[in-house]
Amino acid sequence: MEQLFLILELVGTLAFAASGAITGLKKNMDVFGVCILGLTTAVGGGVIRDLLLGITPPGTFQDPIYAVVALLTSLVLFLPRIRRLLMWDQRLYDLVLLIMDSAGLGIFTVAGIRIAYEHAARPTLFLLVFVGVVTGVGGGVLRDVLAGDTPYIFVKHVYASASLAGALACVVLWPLAGEMAAMLCGSALVVAVRILSAHFRWNLPHAHD
Amino acid sequence: MEQLFLILELVGTLAFAASGAITGLKKNMDVFGVCILGLTTAVGGGVIRDLLLGITPPGTFQDPIYAVVALLTSLVLFLPRIRRLLMWDQRLYDLVLLIMDSAGLGIFTVAGIRIAYEHAARPTLFLLVFVGVVTGVGGGVLRDVLAGDTPYIFVKHVYASASLAGALACVVLWPLAGEMAAMLCGSALVVAVRILSAHFRWNLPHAHD
Amino acid sequence: MEQLFLILELVGTLAFAASGAITGLKKNMDVFGVCILGLTTAVGGGVIRDLLLGITPPGTFQDPIYAVVALLTSLVLFLPRIRRLLMWDQRLYDLVLLIMDSAGLGIFTVAGIRIAYEHAARPTLFLLVFVGVVTGVGGGVLRDVLAGDTPYIFVKHVYASASLAGALACVVLWPLAGEMAAMLCGSALVVAVRILSAHFRWNLPHAHD
Repeated sequence: MEQLFLILELVGTLAFAASGAITGLKKNMDVFGVCILGLTTAVGGGVIRDLLLGITPPGTFQDPIYAVVALLTSLVLFLPRIRRLLMWDQRLYDLVLLIMDSAGLGIFTVAGIRIAYEHAARPTLFLLVFVGVVTGVGGGVLRDVLAGDTPYIFVKHVYASASLAGALACVVLWPLAGEMAAMLCGSALVVAVRILSAHFRWNLPHAHD
Repeated sequence: MEQLFLILELVGTLAFAASGAITGLKKNMDVFGVCILGLTTAVGGGVIRDLLLGITPPGTFQDPIYAVVALLTSLVLFLPRIRRLLMWDQRLYDLVLLIMDSAGLGIFTVAGIRIAYEHAARPTLFLLVFVGVVTGVGGGVLRDVLAGDTPYIFVKHVYASASLAGALACVVLWPLAGEMAAMLCGSALVVAVRILSAHFRWNLPHAHD
Repeated sequence: MEQLFLILELVGTLAFAASGAITGLKKNMDVFGVCILGLTTAVGGGVIRDLLLGITPPGTFQDPIYAVVALLTSLVLFLPRIRRLLMWDQRLYDLVLLIMDSAGLGIFTVAGIRIAYEHAARPTLFLLVFVGVVTGVGGGVLRDVLAGDTPYIFVKHVYASASLAGALACVVLWPLAGEMAAMLCGSALVVAVRILSAHFRWNLPHAHD
């Protein structure tokens, strides 16, 4: 089970780094900027989480496998030939990336909650849920602030909400069903809400509706 | 006296959350975005302060009353009917919000200084004043960076300066007049400078004047 | 040797504060905004570094000499007469500032690595290099995010790369040649790469080339 989580985390890291690198490529940044955005998107949420929990230096510096995966992903996507190869079928590429990104959002959210449980002396409901969501969406917010875009959580409907739903489920189930079941259900709920909302184009209410 | 401070902090939380939620509503964000901006504006300054002082997890997660007030304020303002009711007299609404926001700025500034005194091993003048001002204005800066606006402290003249004046007064009076008198004078000075400058349209000098 | 480092750090602080203050002046900010941007640019990188390493409150608050130098620099540049005097020969001014800014970038990078060595229980290569680069370029990124500009590390080619090259050299030489030699070589490499790239207009590859 732990190994499944590790694999899913690496899949999510890859997808998050890809979204950061693509942002940099669209803005015609040089190879350095593309790598910074890929790295920030992939590990930024975890770094904010660790700072909030007082884990210093943040875990990603002690165990740099995620950072290495993120940098390699960015470098590979920087090569025009590989990029064209990967995107030769744009619809398939979008679908694969949606699934990988959803898996990443789900696993990062529940992994954040587990780390909050391990490190917080008094883990309140609010702390656990907030830390879970920040781990899931924080990297993307950093990417957008650095790139000068409006943070996607204000634009991509039902993205952070998917993380929030899964975080709530995970925190509620934790004492009832145990750690593993709570993490599985929480991340599955994130993936389901995220993919269903992308397919059916769900929207949250706007004030001007 | 402690209870007066608690009430003033809740008043400030309400005003700060309202300013964040209104920012989100003006940008036509969905209910999730409006709540994030309201929450960030209300508790963001305190979170930055706690990270600087090494208080992890930040206090707002251990004692979520301010976060709850901020989220409720954002949700209530999201409802069109209530918003119209509150704003039926725009000038009265602006005046009430100015007073509440000033009270919040004043009380957050001196509350930040008190927490810095409690937690810093060697509280220098610079640390105390900086932490006080960051507690007062940090949430609004986060709001503007997330919403893609120029941070208001560079635009709204004599806003951060009011916090700075009160912080200096509070830190200077602390050893002379005691904690309570220093906090009262400091926050009163913030409120006075803020409201007078809004009324008389005071400006700080610009280089091109 | 320690005194040489202190002098170089003050030179760098001055140059970084000047770049922040000039940004504020170009945007026609008031005296408060100019000072905030000058201060943020000069000490921001060190504050992020200290938060990552768990040094709270950050060192700049315990030893405010750098903050004082940054504020004085900003105030002096705010005075139109002095600004005109300093910039009467724009090309000379640009050259002097380039050299000072390069010295700052070099010394801040290796100083960050030294502090990471002192404070991290398990200093990995990734941690040391990352902390060094963040200390060098972090203040400028904060300045640009606050001022609403695209962070310069994505625009000014071979700026962060210079810091990265010097950080790698410093970390590799540290166990081989000792602390002092590693810091000297690392910062000299930063200065060389930065000035040569500015003179020969080196560029990193872009994906669309």
